[in-house]
Amino acid sequence: MPNQVNVVLLGLGVVGGGVARAISERADTYSQRVGASLALRRVLVRHLEKEREIKVDPGLLTADPEEALSGDVDIVVELLGGEHPAYDLIKDSLSRGRYVVTANKEVMAKHGSELLALAAERGVDILYEASVGGGIPIISPLKRDLSANDISCVRAIINGTTNYILTCMSRDGLDFDTALAQAQQLGYAEADPTNDIDGHDAAYKLAILASLAFHTRVGPEEICREGIGGLAARDFRYARELGYAIKLLAVARLEDSSLQVLVHPTLVPEDELLAKVDGVLNAVEIEGDLTGRVLFQGAGAGSLPTTSAVMADVLEAARALVLGGRPFPWRYTAEVAVRPLAELVTRYYIRLEVADRPSVLAGIARAFGDHQVSIASVIQKEADEAAQTAELVVMTHPAREEAVQATLVQVRDLPDVVSVGNLLRVDG
Amino acid sequence: MPNQVNVVLLGLGVVGGGVARAISERADTYSQRVGASLALRRVLVRHLEKEREIKVDPGLLTADPEEALSGDVDIVVELLGGEHPAYDLIKDSLSRGRYVVTANKEVMAKHGSELLALAAERGVDILYEASVGGGIPIISPLKRDLSANDISCVRAIINGTTNYILTCMSRDGLDFDTALAQAQQLGYAEADPTNDIDGHDAAYKLAILASLAFHTRVGPEEICREGIGGLAARDFRYARELGYAIKLLAVARLEDSSLQVLVHPTLVPEDELLAKVDGVLNAVEIEGDLTGRVLFQGAGAGSLPTTSAVMADVLEAARALVLGGRPFPWRYTAEVAVRPLAELVTRYYIRLEVADRPSVLAGIARAFGDHQVSIASVIQKEADEAAQTAELVVMTHPAREEAVQATLVQVRDLPDVVSVGNLLRVDG
Repeated sequence: MPNQVNVVLLGLGVVGGGVARAISERADTYSQRVGASLALRRVLVRHLEKEREIKVDPGLLTADPEEALSGDVDIVVELLGGEHPAYDLIKDSLSRGRYVVTANKEVMAKHGSELLALAAERGVDILYEASVGGGIPIISPLKRDLSANDISCVRAIINGTTNYILTCMSRDGLDFDTALAQAQQLGYAEADPTNDIDGHDAAYKLAILASLAFHTRVGPEEICREGIGGLAARDFRYARELGYAIKLLAVARLEDSSLQVLVHPTLVPEDELLAKVDGVLNAVEIEGDLTGRVLFQGAGAGSLPTTSAVMADVLEAARALVLGGRPFPWRYTAEVAVRPLAELVTRYYIRLEVADRPSVLAGIARAFGDHQVSIASVIQKEADEAAQTAELVVMTHPAREEAVQATLVQVRDLPDVVSVGNLLRVDG
Repeated sequence: MPNQVNVVLLGLGVVGGGVARAISERADTYSQRVGASLALRRVLVRHLEKEREIKVDPGLLTADPEEALSGDVDIVVELLGGEHPAYDLIKDSLSRGRYVVTANKEVMAKHGSELLALAAERGVDILYEASVGGGIPIISPLKRDLSANDISCVRAIINGTTNYILTCMSRDGLDFDTALAQAQQLGYAEADPTNDIDGHDAAYKLAILASLAFHTRVGPEEICREGIGGLAARDFRYARELGYAIKLLAVARLEDSSLQVLVHPTLVPEDELLAKVDGVLNAVEIEGDLTGRVLFQGAGAGSLPTTSAVMADVLEAARALVLGGRPFPWRYTAEVAVRPLAELVTRYYIRLEVADRPSVLAGIARAFGDHQVSIASVIQKEADEAAQTAELVVMTHPAREEAVQATLVQVRDLPDVVSVGNLLRVDG
């Protein structure tokens, strides 16, 4: 039984700094909670000479990955972010029989299946609680606490940037550009916000959650993805009138043995808890056949919450090393087909700009009818008297995506239709 | 490495039946998720001949505890409920070196510390996810996922019966007796509801959560406990006007190195997620110094959700047996003093029935002033013209419980005060 567990840190950014500080400042507590002391042995950084807020013994710093990974290392904590060189260093570490803890959603989304198999082969483990949902426990509950269930659905708000922007648009009536600028000012959105607002970040995280929940491999490229850039302030107003919030929802749903995996702005009924998750908060709802719906909510990002998740995994790996025994060789056991978006069946919200003429509705209704898309309600919204146009919001009964898209092709061609403003799907 | 893990079930009630069914119907899935098959070897029941909905091989049934526990047993699943004989059988099982999984909140609240130490001594484990919050993962997240944090606060809605009653009183304006009768009709409250409505059940669960969160031993007898029987429909109306919901909150808060542990009907600000947890749902909010506030929500009771939690522990124990290694010897490491209620500092809602005379407020204000309890607002509510009385709702600034109680002694004696209708504390 070792009385010391040697940790190497790859990366000393905001999370890396938090982890280094936690290991040093909480040494006594953590040694009690592990049964051995944690020793930070080396820290891989890009620039040795950089000024840093966090005080780390300069003798621990190295810019050489080989030096960082060599010698007596038990746990490698990867906090570099991005696909390369993180992926290669993780693989290298697992191959050398080290436990790996990572916060890297891109690597886990793209290579999780391979890395888990490699870990299993080497009798170690790769832990990645921090890759989804920041400080919210969600990976471990899926692997352990809900493992008696067959899971049918994962619905999640897992990108704080977009949730902040949507909250501003909804609450303050801001348009997208203003809300984005505000998020950037507050440091909630990056200068180039594409990764967040186009849903790439959420898709990585959903790929990780769906793979775990359904014991299969879902790649980020299999996820139907729509960003939030097309939303208008009035979509929130209309949605609210109809009893919905608009959220960038990441959804993985198993139906008829195939998976629907989507990241898209979605109408969520206002009485659902997910509709009330505002600002930079994240939430993940899991539906299991035994436990029903369980919701996990908290801070989805930030140095300290992410440090909480990384350190939970470090402590877990350290306990496994101290207590002996092999880790559970997690492998994806099922092959589940991903269904194309065209086959989705749900209700739709469609906003149309039309000529303000009595005849307009007949043509639209005919187009919907031609494609067997049943209209639940049509509400005429604001009219622009100068342009002689009006805005219609059509809510459909459950319909097939491809029928709805075909309807819109026909609707766009109607002489009285100026434009199709937006299409949003309802979930719930 | 065993390829079979032998399970004994103590109790075949609603949860026991669910567990027996899960083990038999999900044998393939579980064997994949464990790496060995689970075999139900014996089931302890009270009456061998009783008609049961669940079909279990009659050859497995026994009414003799010694027969149930003897022989080749790996995991004992205790689902008898109540303190005895459950406590004795758990102790016996651990002494024989078996893993124990239990849903027994009373036993864990009263004897958890001793049983955890015994398990550690014998190199096995006692798992009790199902003892709090039904199907919501909360014990395991506290032990594992949040273990890098120092926890400052646990706030929870952990009794579905009372939450259902409070939801009816709030939403439908029912009085307590009507709401209770409705809960009883629906099977959400027992014929003798004392254990729930007086807060005993919630206090057991809070004792378990607080002991875990603060690595100490909090006994149920140390928890200040108030039931919901004194609430009137109009308390909900007044609270809503003031921006609060009323919830039976179980709270454990660490301040100045001592713990405040309370189960009591509480005013919770309406914009907090806990205020929106309605019906029979449960929710637990944990505040850690790294992760901030994390909320776990789901079904707090019922056969299937509880089966989900029990089976998660069974699978975990089975994996530990298959993979080798010792379980982490969990012991409570800290001695934390519990602070008396008299020292609580919070804001108060006080409802008074008074004579409908202009002079009444002066006397009341003087009584509050005499005890340094600062009034934030006084609102006159409904007047009873026949009786010439009116109702006042006083909201205080943060004040000390003993000062507030002393104030009320003085207020009760005022000639213009007919009665003190209710005192509720604000949390949040």
